[in-house]
Amino acid sequence: MYYIGFDVGGMSVKCGIVDENGKILSKRSFATKPERGADALIEEMAHTYRAMIEDEGIAAENIGGIGAGIPGTTNSKTGIVSCAANIYWRNVPFAQEMQKLTGKPASASNDANCAALAEQMFGSGKGYDNAVMVTLGTGVGSGIVIDGKLFEGVDSLGAEVGHMVIIVGGRQCNCGRRGCWEAYASTTALIHMTKKAIENSPITLMRDIAKKEGEVNGKVVFQAAREGDRIALDVLDNYVKYVGEGLCNLANILHPNVFIIGGGISAEGEFLIKPIQHYLDSKCYGGSTSGIEVVQAKLGNNAGIIGAAALCFSKK
Amino acid sequence: MYYIGFDVGGMSVKCGIVDENGKILSKRSFATKPERGADALIEEMAHTYRAMIEDEGIAAENIGGIGAGIPGTTNSKTGIVSCAANIYWRNVPFAQEMQKLTGKPASASNDANCAALAEQMFGSGKGYDNAVMVTLGTGVGSGIVIDGKLFEGVDSLGAEVGHMVIIVGGRQCNCGRRGCWEAYASTTALIHMTKKAIENSPITLMRDIAKKEGEVNGKVVFQAAREGDRIALDVLDNYVKYVGEGLCNLANILHPNVFIIGGGISAEGEFLIKPIQHYLDSKCYGGSTSGIEVVQAKLGNNAGIIGAAALCFSKK
Repeated sequence: MYYIGFDVGGMSVKCGIVDENGKILSKRSFATKPERGADALIEEMAHTYRAMIEDEGIAAENIGGIGAGIPGTTNSKTGIVSCAANIYWRNVPFAQEMQKLTGKPASASNDANCAALAEQMFGSGKGYDNAVMVTLGTGVGSGIVIDGKLFEGVDSLGAEVGHMVIIVGGRQCNCGRRGCWEAYASTTALIHMTKKAIENSPITLMRDIAKKEGEVNGKVVFQAAREGDRIALDVLDNYVKYVGEGLCNLANILHPNVFIIGGGISAEGEFLIKPIQHYLDSKCYGGSTSGIEVVQAKLGNNAGIIGAAALCFSKK
Repeated sequence: MYYIGFDVGGMSVKCGIVDENGKILSKRSFATKPERGADALIEEMAHTYRAMIEDEGIAAENIGGIGAGIPGTTNSKTGIVSCAANIYWRNVPFAQEMQKLTGKPASASNDANCAALAEQMFGSGKGYDNAVMVTLGTGVGSGIVIDGKLFEGVDSLGAEVGHMVIIVGGRQCNCGRRGCWEAYASTTALIHMTKKAIENSPITLMRDIAKKEGEVNGKVVFQAAREGDRIALDVLDNYVKYVGEGLCNLANILHPNVFIIGGGISAEGEFLIKPIQHYLDSKCYGGSTSGIEVVQAKLGNNAGIIGAAALCFSKK
């Protein structure tokens, strides 16, 4: 049996045919053009599904279901998207519509939850029943798997760990509160810290690297730190502290087997992961080691497609 | 069928015969005397169990199991207590020992988890499948129920929400980290805030009330606030903010149906609960209302016994 996974983004929709082992047989994408409205978008998704299986020579009866990862608040029990600002969706009964158009059981969840499910089932969380994935990007995305099942809280309103306040009254967050973890642990925050350090330091490699890169991006501080730049190492230490404090909190609350770190900067590998692991082990409640592994995500951009498809056959 | 619940504390062990509706038929207690060691204590527990059912005229075959709430880190899957400092237990295979002595299936969990289970099944969380209980006392104890099952994290090392840092680098906590929620939201913290306000305020009712009480305890600020004392109202506002920030975090991560507030000061009822509910609703991620009810615990000291017994027949 095969499954269809859609990863719906503000710019493009990616789609793949996925097997039960999380392998993508074929994928394609098209422009989201969200301004056309939900109905038209869902119709193009249904059309793409039919075109894909026809091209692959797969009979419709061999498709077990269609899943979608949505960039917004999505009730995975009902398949209704209550709010996805980037694509202008509000109270869209996605699963019902897709099922009507295709005759296939359809599911939907938040895109970060889909990515977490994919990594736990087929990526760097494989073999572990309890995983928390944290994506360090523009914000801090997250997904939680407990006992092999996606955990989303009542009405799928939980698993928003980026909006856990770590400094009451701290930096303003887009969500309206102050001091949210994502205001300190996102790549956006790291870039902000890098810029500040460059401004305040007459001599730092980061300035030269940023010039070469044409901007201060998330890689600048890592490149400089790898070359031993003291200021860059300080910025990273501080960033690791913020990431680590949030993970310690999640360890004390959820205590998973594994923390999976995703997002562009997770490509820095051990240079980022090791200090985070060390911080967690030294600070976690009740012991000198947390017993929780910190690992780098490994499915990259495919996680969204695979996880969306996996909604159809994962443990419920 | 009946079940036995033990609530093991540093000073006394409370024991009850409990039915499947969470009703206590009979209870008694004895001094813990932890210095005698785990074996002797477990023997007295087994002895007490036999004496109790004999006195009540209940045949041993009508007892379905024996559960215990332990003041420390307890793996509820194995029934092994890895560390309970107050009673000097370290790696005590409680369930196995108790089963050997009584021939009954035995279980154990952390005492705060037992209380949460009791409140969710039979107390103010009844009717809800997802509940987080937070006990505001010397520290901040907690227990989490998800889908009607006690959630404890891998090796029962989670559900320690009091050790979620809300101010990185903030007040020193006993756990070694700084800024833990319990350093701001415990009754200990409230008393500390009350004392400071009295010191800094020439005129406040709190001073007179503390004199009458003979000490600054958790009730002083509430009494003064009920009589309109401005300084006391400010202290409470600040305290509610700290409690509320932690609950918002838990809402964004776990999103339960209900937060159950326990501990001595929960007896202040709506005067404490209402402002917390208001804070939560105004700050929770993604909406103008959290949809989560904040309620006062109602089983009081019996929660420990009932929850320990319920370990034997709750959803697994």
